[in-house]
Order: sequence, then structure tokens, then C-alpha cells
Amino acid sequence: MENFNYPKLNLIKPVPSDIEIASSVEPLPIKTIAKSIGLLEEEIDFYGKYKAKVSLEVIERLKETENGNYVVVTGINPTPLGEGKSTTTIGLCQALGAHLGKKTFACIRQPSQGPTFGIKGGAAGGGYSQVIPMEEFNLHMTGDIHAITAANNLLAAAIDTRILHEGTQTDAQLWKRLCPVDSKDGSRKFAPIMLRRLKKLGIDKTDPNQLTEEEISKFVRLDIDPTRITWNRVLDTNDRFLRGISVGQGKEEQRFERKTNFDISVASEIMAVLALCTSLSDMRERLGRMVVGPSRSGEPITADDLGVGGALTVLMKDAIMPTLMQTLEGTPVLVHAGPFANIAHGNSSIIADQIALKLAGKDGYVVTEAGFGADIGAEKFFDIKCRSSGLKPNCAVIVATIRALKMHGGGPKVVAGTPLDKAYTSENIELLKKGVSNLAHHIKNLKKFGVGVVVAINKFHTDSDAEVNLLVEASLTAGANDAVMSDHWAEGGNGALDLANAVEKACKETNKDNFKYLYPLDKSIKEKIETIAKEIYGADGVEYSPEADDKIKLYTTQGFDKLPICMAKTHLSLSHDPERKGVPTGFILPIRDVRASIGAGFIYPLVGSMATIPGLPTRPCFYEIDIDTNTGKIIGLS
Amino acid sequence: MENFNYPKLNLIKPVPSDIEIASSVEPLPIKTIAKSIGLLEEEIDFYGKYKAKVSLEVIERLKETENGNYVVVTGINPTPLGEGKSTTTIGLCQALGAHLGKKTFACIRQPSQGPTFGIKGGAAGGGYSQVIPMEEFNLHMTGDIHAITAANNLLAAAIDTRILHEGTQTDAQLWKRLCPVDSKDGSRKFAPIMLRRLKKLGIDKTDPNQLTEEEISKFVRLDIDPTRITWNRVLDTNDRFLRGISVGQGKEEQRFERKTNFDISVASEIMAVLALCTSLSDMRERLGRMVVGPSRSGEPITADDLGVGGALTVLMKDAIMPTLMQTLEGTPVLVHAGPFANIAHGNSSIIADQIALKLAGKDGYVVTEAGFGADIGAEKFFDIKCRSSGLKPNCAVIVATIRALKMHGGGPKVVAGTPLDKAYTSENIELLKKGVSNLAHHIKNLKKFGVGVVVAINKFHTDSDAEVNLLVEASLTAGANDAVMSDHWAEGGNGALDLANAVEKACKETNKDNFKYLYPLDKSIKEKIETIAKEIYGADGVEYSPEADDKIKLYTTQGFDKLPICMAKTHLSLSHDPERKGVPTGFILPIRDVRASIGAGFIYPLVGSMATIPGLPTRPCFYEIDIDTNTGKIIGLS
Repeated sequence: MENFNYPKLNLIKPVPSDIEIASSVEPLPIKTIAKSIGLLEEEIDFYGKYKAKVSLEVIERLKETENGNYVVVTGINPTPLGEGKSTTTIGLCQALGAHLGKKTFACIRQPSQGPTFGIKGGAAGGGYSQVIPMEEFNLHMTGDIHAITAANNLLAAAIDTRILHEGTQTDAQLWKRLCPVDSKDGSRKFAPIMLRRLKKLGIDKTDPNQLTEEEISKFVRLDIDPTRITWNRVLDTNDRFLRGISVGQGKEEQRFERKTNFDISVASEIMAVLALCTSLSDMRERLGRMVVGPSRSGEPITADDLGVGGALTVLMKDAIMPTLMQTLEGTPVLVHAGPFANIAHGNSSIIADQIALKLAGKDGYVVTEAGFGADIGAEKFFDIKCRSSGLKPNCAVIVATIRALKMHGGGPKVVAGTPLDKAYTSENIELLKKGVSNLAHHIKNLKKFGVGVVVAINKFHTDSDAEVNLLVEASLTAGANDAVMSDHWAEGGNGALDLANAVEKACKETNKDNFKYLYPLDKSIKEKIETIAKEIYGADGVEYSPEADDKIKLYTTQGFDKLPICMAKTHLSLSHDPERKGVPTGFILPIRDVRASIGAGFIYPLVGSMATIPGLPTRPCFYEIDIDTNTGKIIGLS
Repeated sequence: MENFNYPKLNLIKPVPSDIEIASSVEPLPIKTIAKSIGLLEEEIDFYGKYKAKVSLEVIERLKETENGNYVVVTGINPTPLGEGKSTTTIGLCQALGAHLGKKTFACIRQPSQGPTFGIKGGAAGGGYSQVIPMEEFNLHMTGDIHAITAANNLLAAAIDTRILHEGTQTDAQLWKRLCPVDSKDGSRKFAPIMLRRLKKLGIDKTDPNQLTEEEISKFVRLDIDPTRITWNRVLDTNDRFLRGISVGQGKEEQRFERKTNFDISVASEIMAVLALCTSLSDMRERLGRMVVGPSRSGEPITADDLGVGGALTVLMKDAIMPTLMQTLEGTPVLVHAGPFANIAHGNSSIIADQIALKLAGKDGYVVTEAGFGADIGAEKFFDIKCRSSGLKPNCAVIVATIRALKMHGGGPKVVAGTPLDKAYTSENIELLKKGVSNLAHHIKNLKKFGVGVVVAINKFHTDSDAEVNLLVEASLTAGANDAVMSDHWAEGGNGALDLANAVEKACKETNKDNFKYLYPLDKSIKEKIETIAKEIYGADGVEYSPEADDKIKLYTTQGFDKLPICMAKTHLSLSHDPERKGVPTGFILPIRDVRASIGAGFIYPLVGSMATIPGLPTRPCFYEIDIDTNTGKIIGLS
């Protein structure tokens, strides 16, 4: 890396559109990037010229190497426009890597393809801080989300088909088909995966002929309660008509018709498993123990009970490898996993971080991004992701904009697609002074975890010096190690040098051993929820719907109460109400329902209602998207 | 290629299982294969170590090169066990390439992932004639089918969402959103794709401000008839519960709830477009003109009317490149497209054949496979695929087994999963003598197209010499150029040498200019259907349901009557009734319904009912499939 020539950016003012910038830079062959970071040839699989999958064998090869510095990028509660977490992540890495010469990796999430064609467009950063080629990043990439869709829906098909078969066959018929007699030698054998179910049933036999009639009945009948299935089908498409559907209306299935819905693929538990697993065998076990719903008698029924945990792993065997890409300045990016922040933990994968930390080494940096605001994304990063990996972070970067803090101070509503109010485009110390409390609250929260905290003020050209000074002071008062303006959007890595230096300093100042979780796992589900609600959100208390109460009882009975908590809450406010800005007080957090992702390994309480599959607007992004059939270049993707 | 060292097979008797053979052979790096066939470095994109996508630029680079010999592999009407078309295709290529030293390409279909986990298992050939690595072939491969799923479902989401938006907004609201005023300069611009719709409406204006109110109304209202939408959602999963569904039962969509269904992804028209297009620009135009259903006034509504034709092309931009893989003996295989033979034309792609024919050159061979029996697959190969490409085939190989012909002669029913009757495992001249008529009928059919015909008798160890002789004689009497026994399953390419020599001879004997289509396109839909029914199936006539009659009238009015016909008929009989074996006579072919794939470019009459998404059995293949988490090796995939 020392002798690596990072490509120089040719900065243009005013800053051109994202796609213009992205297509003006010729990416380096990914082979060159792979070599620059010390990957061996046998550790990479190319996917085209600019993407490569990285083998998990790197972790084993470098197991004696000390990990790099581990930095998480998070944010304040944003406006609906977003405040630039991804762009800051990329810009910071360009600065640390291409300008300060540190071995630096950005670890980011793969975006869902759905929003790319809907309202939002792509998610590869912006301005002079981007991942390229942006169309390969935003579209299929290396097929990981497609693999998740395939695996998720194979399990869904297995559930409904099993209910139908159990509903139309006697025990003897099921037994004959599930565990058939070999036509050649007349023998009967269990598939290895069946032994998992037998073990769960407490049946310690491996010869099918030894089973009693009662044991056969227990073995062949999962007896899934069709009214309580929690496993949905998924598609990586913004299709609101799949929010409520009935399946099984075909002639032969209609006795088993039921209501269900599709979620967006990134909301699949399999995505959360991919993000939280630490090895292939860990993924296999997690996929197998995913619970699809209870039996009529309340037993949790798993993917392995359905015989499909192995097949799911096979479908996911390539997806477990992170994808290596590059920034505009030729620094390495590992893209891996992208669990839906609405209902899952919204963080990129542990495996990518593990690989990057080894490749970065002691003096290097791994900058990983946590979705949503710090009250959700960062809290889950610490309490769920770091707990699952055992990795200790040095430092959190909290991205703030003066615009968003003015909104928290009582500024007019910010709506995507309509011009910004003047309050946001000219100096307004009054609003900022009130709104900065939101940032201060997040800084204090982050300090509770024992990490260094650096505030990155994502620069807009309308920000005044007085505003910036106010923000810096408030940050330091709240306990931040540092607070600096960053102009990576307009300047690339060069615009984020102050931020990079601040991060380096904060990492040095922080003793990793001070890192701690917010709550211990052995508390009850309600105690854990209440700790998060009070300590992080500032709630006075928590109230539970009867459904939520019932579910908490069910999961506790099933033995799932020792899992961490993954709150499904709006990111637009510290509270459950997106309209309450700043630092809301005097509220009770309402828990509408509680669900469980047993394979991923968390319980997720629903605070309010969460859309799990987006829709398309009247004029979706796709109207602009086309291909120049002469050059093969994509047009209109943003 | 001349100096290329083909790996030698180490043949074992008795022949081990497919997966044992497949995993006993170390595949060559695909880079080596690519070099051996004369591909330039810039013409390939690697996808892992053993797969590469091949750029369409090869066709342009080699445009002056004479095409190779073009051979299609087809079959008699099979038993439900299949008679070995894929295995013969691979074995023949191993013989021509690795043993006779001819530049030879196998062009085959990518299998649907659904059946891999259901009943059927994989589709990479068998015995010593296989494509490897078989798990990469059978699972995601290079993501083409996933791209189809994504594109298909984006279009589906666009349809229902548009109906909702038209149903809840005035013309003015729709106009304001579809063609918004720029917030910066107050201007209004059409997206380029909108000009396509304007042109179709006969509106010759490019400035939105010039449109009259009436024109605005025509522009913004597609007025799709929700009861006549022909575009379904797709998944590459065997999920029978999606055969009949209701969508739009969510609170905000329920006014627009409607019944629909999912098909298997390979049944998507986009798959047929991929298989039949000849270039990127051709694909763009075909995707744009796909019809999703009529408006309430009967106008065909297209993907471009919905503004999504460009985005679909962008999703398909990598899928248009065929995937290079290899046989067990190191000969090249191009895998590309796999349209569902039940309702589409069931042939691999034109683009793969085009590339292969150029790379093979004058003395080389391209062996391409047509799905189902010769009455469906080969007829569609000639009348649809070759008509679309303009390519002329030299020779057809028709795969027959003595087993299947005995069934046609009145042998007992053959059922997958149950042991074969003795009639099939010992000599039975009587049955064979009666059943050979099925083969003779197909030979005569194939000769009508003016190509050479070689019969490949796919060897079983129970076949007797007398049976083989009978079959050879009957083939020659029916007009075949040659008929030879082939033992590629047990012997690899070495077992198919006679077949390879026969194919070489037939290609030399055949004048390509004698190739002709069965019917001209300018006949009416009914005339074309009747020609196929009488000439190929041997029907006395055709009868149409009222729905079929109505649809034929609709498509004729819409100007779609000059397209070729793609019959959706069972492959288990020459007739529409799978139980009628041999050469049925005295039947009237019933047309239940007629549908159109306007982008793919064919009309498809439904003869009887066709399942368009398979189901899972009580004990699906997935029970056996798992991964060895220590080695990463897949277990149990067959």
C-alpha cells in the first residue's frame, strides 16, 4: 500500500452531478486494488473487472495480525433528505487512505435495488466521495441480495407446502414419503438434517425402523399454526401491492388459503443472519435455527425442522464473501450485507469488518457505517453487532448538518422534492442553538459505550462561520473528543483531512478496553427494552400492547429471552413520534408488537408501525433510466 | 485450440453418481478455456474462477469469419424420466472437441433453480458427460435469472402502482407528477422515454407546454384494464401457493385488490426476450414493446408506456452476455437463457449461438439444444429461433432411447421414482417395433425443414443388439442420414465418437440453403396453428374455445397476427393428450386460450392447461442438500 499510487481527483466547481463524477473517473482494475491491500490471488474471485469477492480464509491467514482501529460512522436524527453518513464514510476513508497513507477500509452496506428505481436513487455516496462503478454497486452487485431472495422464498415455499402435505396425508403417508424405503435394498435412512429434528424432539435414535408410532407422528407433523406464521416472502422491488396478499387461491391449494405479505428482500432475516454471522459454520447454524412460527402447541418451528437449513446455506455460500470495490480515490471498500434498518439492525456485516481489520493491521483503519441515527444504528452496532463479533470499536463519528439541527430547533418541515425554507439556506443562530441539543444528546449516549466521539459537520455552502463555531462548541461541551467541518462532498478526501486527523487522534486517545454494552443479556426482555428507552431515547417509561405482552411471554417461555433487543423505531426522532424533534421529554414509548429473529439472534419490538416494503411514486426514478445501446453506458441512474 | 491439451477422463465402472464424477474432476481455470477458444482478455468478465461472461463484441470482431456448422439436438416424445438430450449434447461436444479436435461449442440453457430443490435435481448432463462445476451451473450461475426476476417484478410493480395512481388522481395531478415543473427554472421536460408514448398516441410534440388538455389526458391515463392484465410476477422457486393469489389487500391498496399469480422466473417473457434478441439495441426495443395487457378500450399497453423499458434493459445489461463454462473434458460450453418450454420456445439464446458460430469458424461445430421433443422444441427452434436470428442449421440430432420407444409401443406406464417394468429392462422386440413409429414421425418432420437428421440412440446397458439394429433400420427407412448408438454417459466423449462422425458427415452432406420454415409469417394466426397441428402433430384439425377465438381476434386487430406461433403443448405425446403414445391419429387439437409475447415476438396458443410454477413434493431434494462447513463443499446436490 505504501508504494501505491492513488489516482488524483480532478475537482470541478460547481460540483457536477453524482453520475457525471462517477463516470468521469476510470476505476482501477479490482485486481490492482486487491494487490494493494495484500490479498493473495487465491483469496479473490472476480465478478467482472471492478468487483471481487474476498474469501474468509484471509481471517485465518492473518489471525496473528493485530486488528486495525475500528471506527463506526453514525448520525443525528436526520431530515428526510439524509445528512450524508455514507458520503462521510467514503470521504473519511479517502482522506485516511489516499491522503494520510493509512491502510484504510470502508465497510458499507449493499443497498436494496428497490429504492434505486423508486424515489431515492442509488446509495454510493455523493459528490467527490463515492464508490465506483456506481451502477454495479447499486444494481445486482455480486448477487448477494438475489441469493437472499432465493433462500428466503425457498423456505416460504417449504412452509406452505408442508402445511398442505400434512393437511392431506396420514402419518403413515407422510412417513413413507419423508423417509422412503430404498427401492433397491429395502432400507430406510434418515437424511442427516432429520437427525436435528429428532434431537430437538428428544428422540435419540438414528434408525428409522426403531421409531414408535407416536415418535413417527411427532417427527412427521410439524403442525405449524397457519395463523401465526412469521416468515414472509420477499422481493427486492418496491411493490406496495404485496403489502397485503392472499396465497393459495389455486384450485388445489384453496383449502389452505391464507393472508400474508411480502417484505423487501433486505428485511429478510437471512440478511440479518448474513450480517451477524462470523463464519460459514456459524451461518449454517443460524440459518437452521431461524424460527418460522409456532406449532399449534406453541413450539418454535425452525428451518431445520423443515429440512431446508442446509439448502439455504448452499444458496448463501457465495454471499458470505464480502465484495471488494473502490472509492473515487482508489481506496478499498468492502460491501457486504444491508439489513433493513426499519426492523433489523441496519449495519454492514461482521465478516467484512473482520477481514478489513486484519488487512488494515495495527496502524490501519476500518470505517464501518451504522444505519439510521445514533439512537438506533449505533446502539445496535454496539449492543448487537459488536456483541456478536466480540470486536471492540475505538471511536464513533457522528455526522451532523446545520440544516438538520435547525430543524430540531423548530425550523419548518423539510420535505423531499420541495425547495428548502430560507431558515435552512441562510444564517439562523436561534434555531441552531435550540436544535443542537439533539446532537448533544447523541454524543452523551455514545460516551456511555466508552468510545471516542468525533463530530463531523457535513458542510453545506450556506453554513455560516458563526453557526459552525456554535456547533463545535456545543459538541465539545457535550463531551465529544473533537468536532470538525468536513467538505469531502466538494473536495473528496482532501476535504476530509481535518476529520481524518480528528479520528486518528480520538482512536489514539481511546482505550478499547473501556468499551461496554448498554445492558447485559441476562436481564428480562422488558428490562432490556426499558434500559434502551430510558437511557438512549430519554423516555419516561414503556407501555406494551396486549400483543406485545403475549409475545414477550411466548418468547420467554421458548427460551429466547436472553437475546439482545433490536428496536424497530423511527429514525426521524429520538422518540417514537417522527414529528417530535430536538430532545423530546415526558413520553412513554409504546411497544405495539414484539417479534423475534432467532437465527439472526435478536428480539425486535415494534414501536409504531413499520412499512416493510416500500412503494413507487407516480413518477419513479426509472423514467430517467436507460442505456445507450451504442456504448452500453447507463443513463439517468442517480 | 490445436495445441490445447484436453484433460483425460479417468473412467470408472460401474459409473459413479453424477456429483461424484463432477467433483472428481478439477475444472480448468476458465481463463484457460477462454484463451483456448480465441477470446481476447477484454472480451471476458470473470465470475469466480470457473465462469466468465463473454462480450457481444466478439461477434463484431469476427464478423468476416464464416460461421461454424450449426447442429440442434432434439428428441422423441420422452418418458417422464427424460431421454438424455442434455447429456447427449455434452457428450457429442466432448467427442467432437476433445477427441476429433474440432472447435466445438455446446450452447445450452441455464436451468431454473426451482426444480433443483424440488424433484428434478440439477440439469448439467450426467455420467461422464457433464458441465462443471455443476453446483455453479445449477445455482445462481452469473445471476441472469435473478436479473430477470428483478426486471419482471419491477414491471409488475409499475403496473399495479400506476393503476392505483390513475385511480386516485385527476388528470392535472397526474400531469403535475409525471411531468413536473423544475423547481429551479420553472421549465417542464419530457423524459426521453415519454416521447415513445407520445409517438404511439400520434402526438408529434416534444414541449410539454404545447399539449392540449385532451392530449394530456391521453398521455397520463394508460387506463389499463385490471381484469385483463397478462403480466404476472415471477419467482425462481417451486412455490405452488403462488399459483393463485390476491394482491393489494393492504389498507391503502384494497380498493384496487385483484387476483393474479406468480410464474416461475424462466416463464417470464423477459427470459424469452433474452433468448431471442440479437443485440443490446434489439433487447432494448423488445423489452420496451412487451405488452402487459390492454387498456379498457383495447389498446395494447407496453413497458415503454409505463416508462420502464429503459430500466428493464439496465437490469438486463449483464444478463445479455452468455456465460462460458466447460465440460468434464475441457471443451467450452456457453450457457445462456432458458425460456420455459411449457409456454415459451424452450431454446437457449441466439446470442450464444452467434458468438459460438463465429468462434468455431468454418470447420467448427456449434451444438445447441432445443427443449422438449422435436414436435415442440425443434419446430420452435426452426420457426421461431432461426427465423429471429436468420441463422441456418445444418443438422438435427434426435435423441431416442429404446426404453421410451417401447413405452410408445404400448409398454407399461413409466413413473419417476418407481422401479421400471421388466418390459424396459429386457429385450422386447414386439413393443419396440410398434413404438419406433414415434421416432419415424419425428424424423419425417425434421426432414421437412431441409436439414440433415442423425438419430442418437442413448445407450442403456439393457439394450439388446437386436433392438438396436431394429432401431437403426427404422431410422434409415424413415429418412435419417444416420442412426448410431452412443455411450457418452458411461464413456464420455470417447463413447460418442460414432455419433460425432455421423454428425460431421451429415453436416457435410447437407446444403444449408435447403433450410426452410414450416410456414410463412403472413398467414393468419389460425392458418399457422393449423399448419403446425396437421403437419407436425398429425392432427385432423383444430378447435378453438370462445376465449381463444376472442384473443385471436384481439391480436389480429392489434396487428400482432404476423408473428410466429409458439405452441404450449405437452411434450409427452405428439397430440395434446399425454396418455396417447406412439403416433396418435384421428384427433382434433383443442386450443383452450391464446396469449401473446409481443416483446419476445410470438403468439402462444395453450393446448390444454399448463402449470407455470411447479410445486415441491413431500420430501423435496433439499433434504439432502447441505454444505460441509469445514471444506465449503456442497453435499447432496444432484
